Amino acid sequence: MFSPLIDDLIQALRSLPGVGPKSAQRMALQLLEHNTQGALSLAGALQRAVEGVKRCNSCRTLTEHDTCRICSSTKRQTRLVCVVESPPDVIAFEQSGVFSGRYFVLHGHLSPIDGVGPADLGLDILGQQLQAGEIDELVLATNSTIEGEATAHYIAEMGKAAQVKVSRLAQGVPMGGELEYLDGGTLAHALNSRTTV
Amino acid sequence: MFSPLIDDLIQALRSLPGVGPKSAQRMALQLLEHNTQGALSLAGALQRAVEGVKRCNSCRTLTEHDTCRICSSTKRQTRLVCVVESPPDVIAFEQSGVFSGRYFVLHGHLSPIDGVGPADLGLDILGQQLQAGEIDELVLATNSTIEGEATAHYIAEMGKAAQVKVSRLAQGVPMGGELEYLDGGTLAHALNSRTTV
Repeated sequence: MFSPLIDDLIQALRSLPGVGPKSAQRMALQLLEHNTQGALSLAGALQRAVEGVKRCNSCRTLTEHDTCRICSSTKRQTRLVCVVESPPDVIAFEQSGVFSGRYFVLHGHLSPIDGVGPADLGLDILGQQLQAGEIDELVLATNSTIEGEATAHYIAEMGKAAQVKVSRLAQGVPMGGELEYLDGGTLAHALNSRTTV
Repeated sequence: MFSPLIDDLIQALRSLPGVGPKSAQRMALQLLEHNTQGALSLAGALQRAVEGVKRCNSCRTLTEHDTCRICSSTKRQTRLVCVVESPPDVIAFEQSGVFSGRYFVLHGHLSPIDGVGPADLGLDILGQQLQAGEIDELVLATNSTIEGEATAHYIAEMGKAAQVKVSRLAQGVPMGGELEYLDGGTLAHALNSRTTV
């Protein structure tokens, strides 16, 4: 439809999550017509981020330093470790401001069928930290899916073997949630785990 | 929240139209976690497009060649010229497949208050083509807004001065449109321009 360079750009923009052919076309034309400066700085930012960003040596979150901002902070409880599946989970905790420990990012969950084993999730690194006695408590905050639960179970066993306290996020009715729209599984769990008032 | 390189990337992604802070964050993490190859090819495509893409000498649409694919085609009626406001309008016509002439892209509309005059819309180039007798008919397909109508009126005067046939897209009820949801202006125009069956 367009000239090859514009078609290439539209195709490349489609690698962004949630961007379909129409949005990509709109983005490409908007950038080329009205914001070539923005396009160039986006190109530069992409290049620099891909080259510079790696995983934190300690918690495996994305960072451009050897040790991320949270792991190198002196204000955090470094012996309290929250295990999450992905960097956005770290953001969710940090934005809520309720957690003062550090994190361990798995970048996925155990999935034997896709060939994702413990080493792919960096569990060897977590194991070393457990063996070295660097951790007092593991908070398991993997997603509440089958794979997330299985991964949590596996890490719980690792923690217990190292004689470290292991906890899991509470499950139940979300705040502001209306029972009418809650799924049966959550409702059953909330009922079984009801607390005395 | 993140390390500087990731923050820069999130900020740069926000220059894309329709991308807010949450989407930009999701895009950045998705690219860095799962698709660094896609990020690099997007960076390359942006760079090449910004450097290579310019405006067609004849119709001012975006292209990397001196003359765009449509203007250099021998299968088009080059003496029939459709005047549109932006490149996506060209795509809309091309996708419908109903127009066999060529285009002239204004990249905007007359807007004295924003300092956009005839020269900014390339109307000097269109004027030269009219004077040189290269055009038999001008089809005015600017948007049906106040500014679009004013721009169409201005170009119509240019066409008439050069003794060239000038036409404007028909206005009325869109196909599949329900009268109930049609605005009063469109309905009034459709009634006044009713056709005998």
